[in-house]
Order: sequence, then structure tokens, then C-alpha cells
Amino acid sequence: MLLVTFSVDGSASKPGALVEGGVRDLSAHVPDLRSLVEGGAAALAALRDADGAVLPRDAVRLHAPLRPGKIVGVGLNYVEHVDESHRTLDTAKELPTRPVLFGKPATAVVGPEEPILHDGNLTAQLDWECELAVVIGRTTRRVSREDALQYVFGYSIVNDISARDQRRSGQWFFSKGQDSYAPFGPAIRTADEVPDPQALDLGLRVNGEVKQKGNTAHMLFPVAELIADISSGMTLEPGDVIATGSPQGVGAAQNPPQFLRPGDVVEARIEGIGTLRNPVVDVRGDA
Amino acid sequence: MLLVTFSVDGSASKPGALVEGGVRDLSAHVPDLRSLVEGGAAALAALRDADGAVLPRDAVRLHAPLRPGKIVGVGLNYVEHVDESHRTLDTAKELPTRPVLFGKPATAVVGPEEPILHDGNLTAQLDWECELAVVIGRTTRRVSREDALQYVFGYSIVNDISARDQRRSGQWFFSKGQDSYAPFGPAIRTADEVPDPQALDLGLRVNGEVKQKGNTAHMLFPVAELIADISSGMTLEPGDVIATGSPQGVGAAQNPPQFLRPGDVVEARIEGIGTLRNPVVDVRGDA
Repeated sequence: MLLVTFSVDGSASKPGALVEGGVRDLSAHVPDLRSLVEGGAAALAALRDADGAVLPRDAVRLHAPLRPGKIVGVGLNYVEHVDESHRTLDTAKELPTRPVLFGKPATAVVGPEEPILHDGNLTAQLDWECELAVVIGRTTRRVSREDALQYVFGYSIVNDISARDQRRSGQWFFSKGQDSYAPFGPAIRTADEVPDPQALDLGLRVNGEVKQKGNTAHMLFPVAELIADISSGMTLEPGDVIATGSPQGVGAAQNPPQFLRPGDVVEARIEGIGTLRNPVVDVRGDA
Repeated sequence: MLLVTFSVDGSASKPGALVEGGVRDLSAHVPDLRSLVEGGAAALAALRDADGAVLPRDAVRLHAPLRPGKIVGVGLNYVEHVDESHRTLDTAKELPTRPVLFGKPATAVVGPEEPILHDGNLTAQLDWECELAVVIGRTTRRVSREDALQYVFGYSIVNDISARDQRRSGQWFFSKGQDSYAPFGPAIRTADEVPDPQALDLGLRVNGEVKQKGNTAHMLFPVAELIADISSGMTLEPGDVIATGSPQGVGAAQNPPQFLRPGDVVEARIEGIGTLRNPVVDVRGDA
């Protein structure tokens, strides 16, 4: 299933599924996607043949699928991106020997079509990163790489937005954790429909122009290894999200470097999940 | 008030207040401390003269006061600690010009007397940091330094535990974000009873021996400036916690370096708040 959170005409948001012809309203069966995730395999199985009105796609507004507990970001997880980051972002030349982990807070999350906030007082280097997002389905503590994918509820997209000039003593939390720096969605593809998370095309466009184009096959640490590594020390909970890193083609590595400006439109796309589209808006306009 | 979350004989945890003679049960007035924080000034005022049974201190077990939404950590925020970190932890020699921010997830929180987990497979450099914790009381977005303290619900202690050898490409999230790496408590002193958060003695002992001893007067960026800076880009929500940085005397800077081992007991203390005591336990014993 391709699960979404949606609303109609500003009413309360509801859980749904993208189906042929629109969005099926699942709110008679489950209160929201978080409950569905926490309900485990039984809750999901019960939804398989659920009925519900199908609303035309253009009658609904999509939101971020859920509010994560935590978002664990992974840096430098594609070989070519390690190289371009070394050239342009003062990271190490060598491939990391362990996953490079950082945090993004839940307050950074926005949904499809919601603005990415550009604050010219804080940054002149607002950058994009299209990433496969792993939505955790079960409490995950010290699991092996072999068992790890059993703990995945589904897959989505996070656009890992960064203000490159807000790294502080090298720490990425404020540069990557500001409000609106984690566009998330448009949908969660349940894990049963993703036979191999390491075989998905992903890419990103800015104002229609292709900037990133890759395949999750090129991850340095694949999803199963990330889950095993993170959970060796840090419990993952249902609804937590892992943003698994970006392929090459970030703005800092364009020649010349190119950063997001108010008025730009960013579209992150992953095969089988959809396109996550967000406009960039000057936050000072609404200050 | 000095607010706590407590339980008796393994029953459900309740909100309370430390008073002369023990812990006053406030559960007839508010379901938990998070609700109290979210209820704002009115909810707190209503508690001032609340009655409730007073249980002897040794009849109750204290827990972490609440589960934060996010924990924003601040690195290198005391001058002497910047110096010792430069000597022993490869950080910069210069004082930071902006607060150095990092994230710790809520899954890292434990309460008083709960074990700090030592995993010899992951670290040989488990370290301590006694820090003033600021508990946010209201949604905080782009507030000025002048107004910032109005957004504080109260003050507590976080022991910012680190596995120094789990920094990855310099990122502190996994080194500081593992399970049990954020002992929190034992109580929250409400902000009205802390006239100046920059005049509090704080310190830490390991096995009874003084390791850290300082005063919040020596913070490089005081609490009001931290709140203004963080909220310039990142919304703080009721129940979020800022761990405001550690004075000198961390384990890495001892001569020779000293790190936590199973069997150690760590006591972090801040004037007017109390002592946060945690034993260090070998996690492999319960694996």
C-alpha cells in the first residue's frame, strides 16, 4: 500500500491510501498513520481489504505521513557524494568506516507542497539532498543485519535540507535541523511492496532541472546495516525515521555552487514512492 | 516548586513535588508533568496550594521528570572546557562565536538511579558532563534574548554522557545519543524560584571523588542567548530540553584520562535542584 495523511478543505487530517483514481479514506479503520505503524502487522493486514470512499487526487491536500519520534540522518553514504563533499564541504576524503549519524528534530518536518523556509539572516547556502527514508515499524534494539529489515514499516522520502553555513564546530544539528529542513512524504510505501530497498532510482530537480540522479544500490551502508548499526546503541521506535543519505549532486558541489533561493521549487523523487515537491519561501516575509 | 515524577512499589508513575518530609502526590490535580508544562502558567498557579498526601522520601522511586520532545545539546559552552577539549578531544582552540548545537534523542533519557549502560563492544571512552537543563514551557520561535527566559518552565540536570570514541566524521549524535546517555532529573525547579540561572554552582563526582566543580556564571552563551539563538531557526516546544554545556573536568581531560567503567557511580549536582545519581552497568550482562 501507498499510505498518506490527507485533508480536505482544511479539515482535520486523516489516514488514506493512494489508489487508482485518487485517495481512499481509511479513517473509519484507523485514526492516523502513527497508530497504524504502532499497531504492527495485524493492523496493516486488517487494512488490506478495507473499504472507504475514494476522493479525487486533486480534492485532497497531502501532509507529512506522520510526525517521527526521532529522525536519524546518515551523512556521506554514497561514494560519489563523499568525493564531492570532500571537494566542497571540508569533510574527509576517505570513505567512512562506520555510518556517519546525525539528528534532525521532529520540528523540522513539513509535508508535500509546504514551504522550505529561507532565512537570509541565517544562511546564504541552503542546500538539498534527496534521501530514501526508512520508517521503523517495531521497537528495534540490537538487531542483526540479517533480521533488520523485519523492523521496517515502509519507505518514504526525506529531503535533507541544510544551511551549509550553519555548521558549528562541524556539528550538523543546527545546519540540518531548522524548521522546514525535513520535507517528508508524499507517501509511505509499505515494506512488503519494496522487495529490495537497495534497487530504487532516486533523484531531485530544482525548478525542473535535474540535479541529483542515483540509485540506492550505491549506498555505502545499506538499510539493513544502518539499522543494525544504529540499534547497537540507540533504540529505534515505531515511527522513527532513518534518512539514509544523499547521492551526488548537492548544491554545494555544483560548478559553480548553487543554493536554494526564495521562489525555487524542489522536487525529490524515489521510484515507487512518488515525488515530494516543496517551494522555497522567504521566511522574512512572514516574520 | 521542585517537581518530580515518582512511583511507589512499581505502580504507575505520578507527578509530585519534593517538600519538607517527602514527596507530595499531585496526581489528583494533574496527570503528569508534561501536562503541567503544556498547561502553562495557569496550570502551575493552580498547583501552588494543592493538597495531597506526603509520602516519605524513601518510600518512593523517582523517574526522569518527563520525556522531552527534543534535547538540544550545547557543546563547548564554558571557557575552561573549551580549553581542555582542545587539548584532549581535537576540537578547536578558539572560543566558538556561535553556540555549538547537537541533538540527543528522547530515547537516551533515563531517570535517577537508573543505569548508564556501558557497552565494551562500542566504547572504551565513556565520559560524563554535568549540565544545567532548561525545560521549555511555551512554544518558542524567534524570541529575543530579552524575552527568552519567559519561555522557560524550569531547570533540571542532564548528565551529558558521551562515548568519545563513537564520534563519526566529527558528529556527536551517536557518541552522545545512545540509550541511557541522558540521565535527567532528579527534579525540575520551576523558573519562578530561579531568579538567576547564571549563578548556580554545579559539579559532578565519580565514586564520591569531585571531578567537576563550576558555576553557571561561566557559560560562554547564557541561557537567554541560547534560547534566542536556537529559536532563530528551530522551534522549541513545551517539554523540550536544552542541555546547556559542561564546565571543565570531563574524563577525557583528566591526567591521565579517566573513563567510566561498570561499577562506577556518577553524581551530578546543581544548586537548588538536587543530585542526579546513576550507576554504570555493563550492558552485556543483560544482552
